Amino acid sequence: MKLSFEKSTLLNAINIVMKAVPSRTTMPILECILVDASDEEIKLTANDMELGIETKVKGNILEQGKIAIDAKLFSEIIRKLPDSEVWIETDDSLNVTINCEKSNFKIAGKPGDEFSYLPYIERNHYISVSQFTLKEIIRQTIFSIAANENNKQMTGELFEVKNDFLRVISLDGHRISIRKVQLKDHYEDEKVIVPGKTLNEVSKILSGDAEKEVLIYFTNNHILFEFDDTIVVSRLIEGQYFNVDQMLSNDYETKMSLNKQEFLNAIERAVLLIRESDKKPIILTVTEMGMEVAIRSAIGSLKEDIMIRKEGKDITIGFNPRFLIDALRVIDDETVDIYMVNSKAPCFIKDSEGSYIYLILPVNI
Amino acid sequence: MKLSFEKSTLLNAINIVMKAVPSRTTMPILECILVDASDEEIKLTANDMELGIETKVKGNILEQGKIAIDAKLFSEIIRKLPDSEVWIETDDSLNVTINCEKSNFKIAGKPGDEFSYLPYIERNHYISVSQFTLKEIIRQTIFSIAANENNKQMTGELFEVKNDFLRVISLDGHRISIRKVQLKDHYEDEKVIVPGKTLNEVSKILSGDAEKEVLIYFTNNHILFEFDDTIVVSRLIEGQYFNVDQMLSNDYETKMSLNKQEFLNAIERAVLLIRESDKKPIILTVTEMGMEVAIRSAIGSLKEDIMIRKEGKDITIGFNPRFLIDALRVIDDETVDIYMVNSKAPCFIKDSEGSYIYLILPVNI
Repeated sequence: MKLSFEKSTLLNAINIVMKAVPSRTTMPILECILVDASDEEIKLTANDMELGIETKVKGNILEQGKIAIDAKLFSEIIRKLPDSEVWIETDDSLNVTINCEKSNFKIAGKPGDEFSYLPYIERNHYISVSQFTLKEIIRQTIFSIAANENNKQMTGELFEVKNDFLRVISLDGHRISIRKVQLKDHYEDEKVIVPGKTLNEVSKILSGDAEKEVLIYFTNNHILFEFDDTIVVSRLIEGQYFNVDQMLSNDYETKMSLNKQEFLNAIERAVLLIRESDKKPIILTVTEMGMEVAIRSAIGSLKEDIMIRKEGKDITIGFNPRFLIDALRVIDDETVDIYMVNSKAPCFIKDSEGSYIYLILPVNI
Repeated sequence: MKLSFEKSTLLNAINIVMKAVPSRTTMPILECILVDASDEEIKLTANDMELGIETKVKGNILEQGKIAIDAKLFSEIIRKLPDSEVWIETDDSLNVTINCEKSNFKIAGKPGDEFSYLPYIERNHYISVSQFTLKEIIRQTIFSIAANENNKQMTGELFEVKNDFLRVISLDGHRISIRKVQLKDHYEDEKVIVPGKTLNEVSKILSGDAEKEVLIYFTNNHILFEFDDTIVVSRLIEGQYFNVDQMLSNDYETKMSLNKQEFLNAIERAVLLIRESDKKPIILTVTEMGMEVAIRSAIGSLKEDIMIRKEGKDITIGFNPRFLIDALRVIDDETVDIYMVNSKAPCFIKDSEGSYIYLILPVNI
C-alpha cells in the first residue's frame, strides 16, 4: 500500500475515528485504526464492537492495500508532523513507513484483515435532522442518563419518532429530561434506545452546523448516523423503555416564572457549601414576596432572594441542587416557568410549546 | 470587623495569596487566609511556614479587626459572587457574613491571632530587577532542579549576585541550566539557594511586566520578593551550592549551529516512540553532510536530517531527548550553537554573550 495525504486532512479524519477506539480492550487489534485503500477510496475505521466509526479521507492511492495502525501512536505521529504532504507506505512484513518532509518514521502495523468491520446496516428507515439540532438535543438531555449499569435502559436515551416529531428522553430515577423537535419531512414511527456513550461520541464529532444534515438510520439492533464523510454505527440497547408519558402531568398548584440566569447563579453559589458526600438539599420558599433560595450545611449557610412571578399557592420545597443546575444550564430561554404541586411531588420546568420538559423529584426536608 | 471591597479587587488579592496555602497540612489554621484590617489598611496573608505571601487590598474599613477564613471556600465564594460590592463582617463568635447584592453567606471563621505571621525580614541587602526578567529567568532554569529531596540543594536554585550580574543556576546531576542578566545598579555580592517551590509560585504571581520592578531582599535565612502590593517571603535552603564553574569549559572539538525550532520539532517527534519507562537515547550523528537525528525503540524508529553549520570533528553522541527538549524550549534565539568534545563529555548549548549556558550530559550508546 502506498498513499499520500495532506497532513491536516489526514489528522482530521484520525481525530474523528479515534472516538471509537476503546481505551481498554482485550483485543489489541481494536486499539488500531484500519486504513483501507483496497478500493478506489481511502477509508479510516475504528470499532470498539459497540460503536464503530468510518470516515472517508481525501488522498492519493499510489498502490492499493490496507493496514491496521496503533491508533494512539498514529494520531500522535501525524499531529507532530510538519503541515505538509504525508506519505504512508507498507511492505509485505507489515512495516509502515510514514514520511513527511525530512522525517522518516518506521513502525509496525497489523494485518488489516484481522480488523472487525462495521456491521452491515439496512438503510430503509431513517430520519434527517441538522447537525446543529442533533448536537443540541444530545447536550440538552445526556446529563440525566444513569451512570451505572444497574438498569441498562437508563444508560441510554430513547429516540422516538412519532407524528413527524423526534422526541429524545433520558432519565435516571430522580429526574427526566425530554426534548422534542419537529421533523421537516414525513417519516415512519420509530422507538429505539441509543447508548449514552454513542451519543456522547457522536456529539463530539458533529460540527454543529445548522446547514448540514445528519441521516439517522434505524434497524432492530443498530442505529447509524451518516454525516459529512463519516458514518457512526452503534448497537442499540435492548428492552422496553419506561413509560414516561404516564409520569407527566399538566396539573399544578404553584407556577412561577423567573430569570433563569439569576436562579442558576444562586444555586451555583449554594453548592459551594456542599462537599461531595454531603446530600444537603437546597430549599426554595415561594411566597407572595418572591422566592428565597436557602441552603445550610456543616460549612455554612446561604440565603438569597429571587424575584418571581407567581401563580397559585405558597410552597416550601427541597431539591438536590445539582439536578436543578443540570437542567437550567441547558435551557436557553431567558425566563423559565416552573410548575409544582406540593413538596412531595415532582416539579416540572417546561416551556409552553413542549419543546422541553425537565421533571425533577424533590427531596424530603 | 466590617469591610467592603470591589469583588474583582478582592478576588485578585485572594488569587495571589492562595499560592502560599498548603494543599495538605497538619495545622488547619494554615488552610486559611488571614484578613487583617486591624490597622489602617487591609492585608491578606497566607503562609505554609516555608513560603508566605502578603498582599494589600483596596477596600473600606468600617470596623477594624481580623479573621482567618478557609482559603478554598473563601476563594470559591468570592469568585461566584456578582461583579459588585462585597461586604465582609464578623461577630464576636467568629461568624463571617459575606454579602453581595442579594446573596448572604454565613460561614465560620477562625481567630486571626492563631495565624502564623510572616517572619520579620531586615531590608538591608537587595537587588532590583524587572518583573519580566525575574519571571523569564525562573522559567528558563526551573525545569532542571531535582524533583526528589535526596539532595536538598538540588531542589533549589542558586541566586548569585556578583559584579552587578545576577546569575541563576539549577542542576539535577544530569544537566545544568544557567542564566545571567546584568543588573542596572551596583549591589553587594550575594549567594543564596532559593527553594524551587517558592520560585514556581513567585513566577505565577509576577505579571511579567517589563516596566514594573521587583525588589529582592536577602538575609541569612530568608529571601523576600516585593512587587506591586505584594510581598513573598521564603526560607532559603541551607548549605553550600555546587561549584558549577569548575564544570564549565570553553574547549570543544565540534561546534554546530542550527535552527532551534527545526531541531526541537525533530526531537519532539522522536519522543513519540518512547514510552514513559523507556530510556532510549536520541542519537545525533554529525558529519560534513549535516546532522542525522535518530531514535529506535520497541515501538519503531525515526530518522530525520537537519541542516547545520559545523566546525571541527564529526561526532556521534546520544542524549536523553527530554533534556534537549527542556533546554531548547526556553531558548528564544532562532539559531543555537552547540559545543561538544566527545561522546562521553557534556555538550553545551550557549550563546556568545554568556546570557545562557545549558550543559547536558550524554548517555552511552
